[in-house]
Amino acid sequence: MLQFAFLYSAPQLKGDEGMYLFNDLPGQVLQDRYGFEATEAWANHLRLSSVRFNSGGSGSFISSNGLVLTNHHVASDTLHKLSTPERNLIDDGYLAKSLDQELKAPDLELNQLVSIEDVTSRVEQAVDADAAPSESAKQRRAVIATIEKDSLEATGYRSDVVTLFGGAKYHLYRYKKYTDVRLVWAPETEAAFFGGDADNFEYPRYNLDATIMRVYEDGKPAQLKNFLKWSSDPLKSGELVFVSGNPGRTQRIFTAAALKYLRDSRIPYLLDFLRRKEVLMQQFSLEGQEASRRARDELFGIQNSRKAYTGMLAGLQNPQTIQNKQAREDVLLAAVAKDPDVSGLAAAWSEIAAIQQEKAEMLGKSVSFRSSLFGYALQLVLLAAEDQKPNEERLRGYTDAARDSLLQSLLSTAPVYDDLEQVKLADELSRFIETQGADSPLVMQVLAGKSPRERAAELVNGTKLGTVAERKKLVEGGNDAVSVSSDPMVALARTVEEEYRRLRSENERIAESERQAYARVSQAVTAIEGTGGYPDATFTLRLAFGEVKGYLEDGKKIPATTDFSGAYQHALDHAGQQDFDLPKSWLKAESKVNLKTQLNFVCTADIIGGNSGSPVVNREGELVGLIFDGNIQSLTSDYLYSDEQGRAVSVAGVGIIEALRAIYNAGDLADQIGK
Amino acid sequence: MLQFAFLYSAPQLKGDEGMYLFNDLPGQVLQDRYGFEATEAWANHLRLSSVRFNSGGSGSFISSNGLVLTNHHVASDTLHKLSTPERNLIDDGYLAKSLDQELKAPDLELNQLVSIEDVTSRVEQAVDADAAPSESAKQRRAVIATIEKDSLEATGYRSDVVTLFGGAKYHLYRYKKYTDVRLVWAPETEAAFFGGDADNFEYPRYNLDATIMRVYEDGKPAQLKNFLKWSSDPLKSGELVFVSGNPGRTQRIFTAAALKYLRDSRIPYLLDFLRRKEVLMQQFSLEGQEASRRARDELFGIQNSRKAYTGMLAGLQNPQTIQNKQAREDVLLAAVAKDPDVSGLAAAWSEIAAIQQEKAEMLGKSVSFRSSLFGYALQLVLLAAEDQKPNEERLRGYTDAARDSLLQSLLSTAPVYDDLEQVKLADELSRFIETQGADSPLVMQVLAGKSPRERAAELVNGTKLGTVAERKKLVEGGNDAVSVSSDPMVALARTVEEEYRRLRSENERIAESERQAYARVSQAVTAIEGTGGYPDATFTLRLAFGEVKGYLEDGKKIPATTDFSGAYQHALDHAGQQDFDLPKSWLKAESKVNLKTQLNFVCTADIIGGNSGSPVVNREGELVGLIFDGNIQSLTSDYLYSDEQGRAVSVAGVGIIEALRAIYNAGDLADQIGK
Repeated sequence: MLQFAFLYSAPQLKGDEGMYLFNDLPGQVLQDRYGFEATEAWANHLRLSSVRFNSGGSGSFISSNGLVLTNHHVASDTLHKLSTPERNLIDDGYLAKSLDQELKAPDLELNQLVSIEDVTSRVEQAVDADAAPSESAKQRRAVIATIEKDSLEATGYRSDVVTLFGGAKYHLYRYKKYTDVRLVWAPETEAAFFGGDADNFEYPRYNLDATIMRVYEDGKPAQLKNFLKWSSDPLKSGELVFVSGNPGRTQRIFTAAALKYLRDSRIPYLLDFLRRKEVLMQQFSLEGQEASRRARDELFGIQNSRKAYTGMLAGLQNPQTIQNKQAREDVLLAAVAKDPDVSGLAAAWSEIAAIQQEKAEMLGKSVSFRSSLFGYALQLVLLAAEDQKPNEERLRGYTDAARDSLLQSLLSTAPVYDDLEQVKLADELSRFIETQGADSPLVMQVLAGKSPRERAAELVNGTKLGTVAERKKLVEGGNDAVSVSSDPMVALARTVEEEYRRLRSENERIAESERQAYARVSQAVTAIEGTGGYPDATFTLRLAFGEVKGYLEDGKKIPATTDFSGAYQHALDHAGQQDFDLPKSWLKAESKVNLKTQLNFVCTADIIGGNSGSPVVNREGELVGLIFDGNIQSLTSDYLYSDEQGRAVSVAGVGIIEALRAIYNAGDLADQIGK
Repeated sequence: MLQFAFLYSAPQLKGDEGMYLFNDLPGQVLQDRYGFEATEAWANHLRLSSVRFNSGGSGSFISSNGLVLTNHHVASDTLHKLSTPERNLIDDGYLAKSLDQELKAPDLELNQLVSIEDVTSRVEQAVDADAAPSESAKQRRAVIATIEKDSLEATGYRSDVVTLFGGAKYHLYRYKKYTDVRLVWAPETEAAFFGGDADNFEYPRYNLDATIMRVYEDGKPAQLKNFLKWSSDPLKSGELVFVSGNPGRTQRIFTAAALKYLRDSRIPYLLDFLRRKEVLMQQFSLEGQEASRRARDELFGIQNSRKAYTGMLAGLQNPQTIQNKQAREDVLLAAVAKDPDVSGLAAAWSEIAAIQQEKAEMLGKSVSFRSSLFGYALQLVLLAAEDQKPNEERLRGYTDAARDSLLQSLLSTAPVYDDLEQVKLADELSRFIETQGADSPLVMQVLAGKSPRERAAELVNGTKLGTVAERKKLVEGGNDAVSVSSDPMVALARTVEEEYRRLRSENERIAESERQAYARVSQAVTAIEGTGGYPDATFTLRLAFGEVKGYLEDGKKIPATTDFSGAYQHALDHAGQQDFDLPKSWLKAESKVNLKTQLNFVCTADIIGGNSGSPVVNREGELVGLIFDGNIQSLTSDYLYSDEQGRAVSVAGVGIIEALRAIYNAGDLADQIGK
């Protein structure tokens, strides 16, 4: 049975729960529980040594000359884009022997968080509290665009306003951006993803899920003041560790009604969607080795999500989960009702319940077809139109502050594979018929009298958006060029633009209503249960902490750490099974490796997707590990933290160094690390 | 673009369309088009040489001493049930060197059609035409049960009343049953399913999708008067061939509204379901080689269905398909409206449209969890209760006439794998929560406060239904034993019994309304367009005919036949790809095989799922092939026949003989064939 975590605030937090803001660290908790003092210098150094990957993950600076550590599975998007039929970085890994062999990522952006400013009052003053949600959403968007633009112009930093505590707080995050990022070293997928989909989210593990890149400035390795030194000591059970990374999204503030929506509508819908795409990509892969290579990275991502959501749904389908949540909510609501200062806030819960119904009705309504080429087309069409408007009226992602990042992705040199695009677009058109109905006028316009497969072939064969030059021409040509372009993919994006905008604005209205309601829930909870705690995750930098700690599973003791000898044994135990072969480099090096070196470990720190690639540091701020997974018992942590069995899974820092030296002949690289 | 077939009757049939009743063969068409006279002796011999597999497929008698030919994929259910970790018949194939090595199938029943009798008037007299559908369904079920029982008692033959032309005709089919069926020879899956899921439904093909069994009577090989001789001539392009088999189900009478229901509701629903089960079984298979062996047969079946429905949906999503159907329907309805004799029948079309809505609402409503153990439990509970009623009031499948076949499946010695059962049942319980809602009282009763995974473990570990002895005890103990059994799976079946019966009766009411409406559609069509033609498929014996004939695909000529040299070349062309390795036996025998021997071929005969394993014969009634697939262009033949590109795919008879002699060292077996 799952134990339910305390959801709201510091006094009710459970064990090592918490993803804390760097400007609101849990100093007292760390002092009381671990006798640890998180000094400002310690925290600032850790923050400035941490980076966010715009492809969806975390990382850290690990040398003065620009080295960056992240997961292989965070880097795999880049590895995939840098691969060709002749140079298969995903299968074979990579090691740059010199700076000139380091390979530039086609569209990676790394963000280093340099400051946080509370802008709540500036946002609130600009929003009319009595306005209808669609109006207040517009006002909020406008003031946020202005704050971001002002900050960008004043500082030159990427500037993002982040909504926290369901809309009770707004903070302005300023980032130094690194857009020249190069690949230095990656192991083979066989080592990084050892055990494949079968072992994913399991523990014990033996994965070298690590990759090293380097950031450049002005064509030279960036000179960094803040980077992590590495500990050479093995991890000890009970040791206090910290995780500094960017958890993507949690939903711990969610009401019981919102969890029911996840259980009954959203996650079943997502799972149907993911399984559909999984089977589609598998079918495409069957066409041959090159097809398989083209589809692999996306297929892995889909399988990973499918497995994660399956675990989340299993947690929600346990009758205890929502019963416990409901019981806690009943107690809280009874207290709210008795307190005249906040009793008016109780309506927020029923508003949230009503909003879930609206959200359920929006599921599957989308005209944003998942295909790179269509994605480019839609971005081009929106960019051209948004550029006609003043900055504060533009869609999020199309403001002045967001322009560089948008162009970084729109002008990516990543290859586009027409065969894969065709299969993906045909399936999206087929799904469009299913969700909108074949007789919808928009569907008929989109299909133009053809079957999904024929139409997809015509679009992909007809468009020129596969080349950067063509996209650049349309970006530079602006609305005059885009609005009359005869490119069929651009024409398709124009066809669906109006409906896309309608759906987007409808979704924004719903999100705004929900945000306002959760802000009142936050207010009520704070009034009843006190302040403190942490806001739900927002893919921004957070600090989590915990102990290196094993656990019990079906009465069996699962140890906190594994080592290299375990990896070789695991391969033997699963001989002949798919994804359980260690790469040749490991087999060849077996006699050279110190088999007792730690390879993976678990700790109780509170993490979630987006934390992949986060550094794990000790009290001294030295790197001891690299987050790469959560175990299956942690999959409910989207809405519920538990340290009974839930664990974060990391590669040990000492294991990375051992592999570089003993397996990958990368002693020169290892020598640079931490220096 | 798909061309739409003429749907209703003989004068509008297209090319070689048609799955004809053996008591209503298209003599004139065969005479006119091919100058062929189908004599009664020719037809009777072919009918009596054909068999139906209760596991869902067709086959033929091919020797006087009881040999039966079918597909490997029809036999694979039996191969799977006869396999153990030590004896993997699926991977390794099998050859019995003597009678005592022939392996008895645990639950196979073969049916030989011995006679057909028209009982339409007897059924119609017993049904009150003015009664409500639920009442008339009851009356119909009662008279059918009585007819079947009377026939069984009078003749000793299995007796099934078959509903034809959407309920306009009822025929009584009498079968001689064979329940002692033994495995003689099966090739390796690598040969039978060469090219795997990638090549499935594709052409050209190079598959030895064949297996030979033997029927026994009184413990000895059955002595057969009717069996097929084999032609030793290669097939020629343009040659007339016949297919005698049991097409499962077609929907060619369907109205445009019914096709829209398939397109918008039923097939998308089925595809979500199939992809869910596909991913589930794949995940289970990842646990190891033995897990993979246990799951394989079911996984293949799921993948096959998923690919078939994907093709069907693609056809329906082509805007032309339903537009053409609707246009044809409009012409017909205009003629109906003008004809005072039948204008009253026009309402049937709108009734059918309304019924589609009811069918859509029933989708996913099921309490019949897909697990062998639960299946046994539900059958036991229903059998015990139905036995309390007079024969004519019982559910279909539980009448006196059906009892032997029911017990054959209920007391199967097929192994039950607890680990697989647990995973399947947990998923079914999870799906039950999704479809019924977590707060439904029945869901809460079924889960008993536990998560789907915990509950499934408790049920599977607690039940004794995995053993035949326990099931036998409960069958013999009847209602007294079953109604108080503390077996948790039996208790679960009792818990859902009421809802199961309610849903079943609701589905029967809807089906009855639809049947009555289609009977009127049939009547109207006959009045306007004339008589003749064939009823939609009902998994009963039919005769189809056509030519051996290649086709054009993307401007490329696809030849009608392939040979052994093509198989070896195909393996080379796909070296390193999954499922494209020929088995060792083939590689070893390459120099001995006559590489020019035909292996597979295509013809224009009108087939569908259920036809798998059907014999293909020439004008002389000699076996020339064995149906095993349709090409991708034929996947729409559920609702639309087209011979433009649609083709039935067969193993050539000469190829089977060559493989037996040159690859499988089975000359003794080959010597028995056709004699």
